[in-house]
Amino acid sequence: MTNRVDMDIPSGWEIDDTNIALTREFLFEDFTSAWGFMSRVALAAEKMDHHPDWSNSYNKVMIRLVSHDKGDVTDRDLALADKINNFYKE
Amino acid sequence: MTNRVDMDIPSGWEIDDTNIALTREFLFEDFTSAWGFMSRVALAAEKMDHHPDWSNSYNKVMIRLVSHDKGDVTDRDLALADKINNFYKE
Amino acid sequence: MTNRVDMDIPSGWEIDDTNIALTREFLFEDFTSAWGFMSRVALAAEKMDHHPDWSNSYNKVMIRLVSHDKGDVTDRDLALADKINNFYKE
Amino acid sequence: MTNRVDMDIPSGWEIDDTNIALTREFLFEDFTSAWGFMSRVALAAEKMDHHPDWSNSYNKVMIRLVSHDKGDVTDRDLALADKINNFYKE
Repeated sequence: MTNRVDMDIPSGWEIDDTNIALTREFLFEDFTSAWGFMSRVALAAEKMDHHPDWSNSYNKVMIRLVSHDKGDVTDRDLALADKINNFYKE
Repeated sequence: MTNRVDMDIPSGWEIDDTNIALTREFLFEDFTSAWGFMSRVALAAEKMDHHPDWSNSYNKVMIRLVSHDKGDVTDRDLALADKINNFYKE
Repeated sequence: MTNRVDMDIPSGWEIDDTNIALTREFLFEDFTSAWGFMSRVALAAEKMDHHPDWSNSYNKVMIRLVSHDKGDVTDRDLALADKINNFYKE
Repeated sequence: MTNRVDMDIPSGWEIDDTNIALTREFLFEDFTSAWGFMSRVALAAEKMDHHPDWSNSYNKVMIRLVSHDKGDVTDRDLALADKINNFYKE
């Protein structure tokens, strides 16, 4: 298992209770703003073939990144988390 | 409270444990198909100004419709559930 | 016909050669950014039931707003142009 | 140059006047249906890193596929045209 002390977790993300997933909540001013963000995340996820478990409620988006077959946070999770942060400008 | 026996709940939807929300899970062949569906639902929700609590994991979409301030399933929940069903063709 | 001198045209938009449509070109850093923007515009357009004629090529989005049945730039065109400008942050 | 007689052009697409681009027009019942389709095409395009020149007007979507640097219809154009056809169910 990777030493988490050394893992470079992108800003705002946390390793959740399962110890194998990264999560972050994103807040927006309204639904259209949240949806514009989700539409960019969808493109990045499809391009990487690495799709999030995610939910939305109006101006809130919760994203969970997990590599189901690995049993640990992976480089792909970290790479997607980093891209998602770049889409988030507030 | 509305008599649920008389309420015309659109096909496939259920009233959840809270007794005030409608839920339904939708399955697709892959992420692009799920996302195309969600993109239509987003438009319908924004137009009605009635936004779902929803989540997605690859080819699965779970939608929960609730009128937070009402304490019961409302006509708007039913109308949006009906529209969403029309977007779901599999 | 409205006196165009008095019409409050949102920043960056122009009345095109037909004299009845507003147009503006929007530039983004890449496709995902352009698409995030378009996804917000789609929601606003559907909500107003006033849909643009628009095109996209990678990081470029050209939007044309016209009220086909009116023969002039309308308040709805101006209101949608204004909303679209709010979505454009670069 | 490829012999176009032998080229397997997906159903409904045509080589346009420039002789290097594929085009097809798609019709839908309304804007939400057109937009759901476009949202799937956007994902496929981003995944292939091959973005269309396209336009939309309410229920109409016009797509033009061109490999700007090649001077001919390419295998990538054909592959994306084929994927897009799979998204189009009417």
